[in-house]
This record gives sequence, structure tokens and C-alpha cells, in this order.
Amino acid sequence: MIVTLVYVKVKKEYVDQFIVATEANHRGSVREPGNLRFDILRQSGDPCSFVLYEAYQSEEAAAAHKQTPHYVEWRNVVEPWMAEPRRGVPYDILQPEDPSRW
Amino acid sequence: MIVTLVYVKVKKEYVDQFIVATEANHRGSVREPGNLRFDILRQSGDPCSFVLYEAYQSEEAAAAHKQTPHYVEWRNVVEPWMAEPRRGVPYDILQPEDPSRW
Repeated sequence: MIVTLVYVKVKKEYVDQFIVATEANHRGSVREPGNLRFDILRQSGDPCSFVLYEAYQSEEAAAAHKQTPHYVEWRNVVEPWMAEPRRGVPYDILQPEDPSRW
Repeated sequence: MIVTLVYVKVKKEYVDQFIVATEANHRGSVREPGNLRFDILRQSGDPCSFVLYEAYQSEEAAAAHKQTPHYVEWRNVVEPWMAEPRRGVPYDILQPEDPSRW
């Protein structure tokens, strides 16, 4: 099981559209068979800064996410709204190690 | 519902002890009434870098965590093992907005 933390800074004028597009990506992602979580967070006091918490059963499931129509649509539509390049940081999961707690 | 991302860099020689202590904190934290998640992640390719993903029902529940014996014990025991000061970043949760999905 792995997590990718994706850090996103959005241009101020596109924040509302970014949230709509990312919520659509969320709805598609949580239906993928290998998905464990796809949380959307906004930094307190910094309304243009977001984190996506993307948990998958395996590297393969995370890679398959990037082939899905909802991801490809999201990636393309949000691209011009970025204030800086997105940054994805991969993590191994130490806890919970029980898959039923994901 | 809120999340705090806690970034921790551990001195190499204390990594194993840090994991043991943080897993004890995890076991206590997930039993707190207002806790939603307490995930322990280790950065891929950087075995001294950790993230704690601490989700709580409210600010009050997150503040109550810092009064628990398991948190106080953890904070004190890990302090000398830090390679740099810990950094906690607070986030608001946009999705899932349904509490039953936490």
C-alpha cells in the first residue's frame, strides 16, 4: 500500500474552478478498484494551496490511476490554473498496516 | 473535520526507535473519540523522513489529542531523535465531506 501526497498551488482566480474539477476527479478515483483514499485538503489560512492524499493498494494501481479518463481530464483542465508546477511525493505506509482499515 | 500533516526528520541512528514509539502513539490516537485517522508514512527513498496524517472531527478533538498520555509520552521520547524541528501544517477537508467516509 502506498500514498502519494500531491502539492498544488492554484492561481487565485481559478480556485473555485479547481475545486469543482478536483472533486470530479475525487469521485472517479474513489471508484477505481485499487484506490484506498483520495482526500482533498486545503491549507488553513492559504486558500490557494491544496494537498491531494492519494492512497492505493499498489504501485500498479497508482499507475493505472494515471490512465483513467477522470485523471486525464483533470490533468488537462487544471494545467493552466497552476501557480507553480505540481509536486507529488511518494510514501510507503507503516500504519495502518491492516488493509481493512483503509 | 481537519487534518494536520506533521513532517518529521529523524536522525538515522534513531529511526527504528522512532517507528516503535510512533506506532504506540498511533494505537492510542486511533482510540480517541474524535480521531478519524492517524496514518504513519515513510518517504520512499528517504528512510529518515516521515509524515503523520492526523485527521480529527474538530479543532477541539485535535487539541485534546495533545493532552493525552500517549501523545505526551511520544513527544518527550522522540524529542532527542529529531534531525530538525517537527513541522505541523493544518488543513481543512474538502473531500470526503461525508463523515462516514472517514
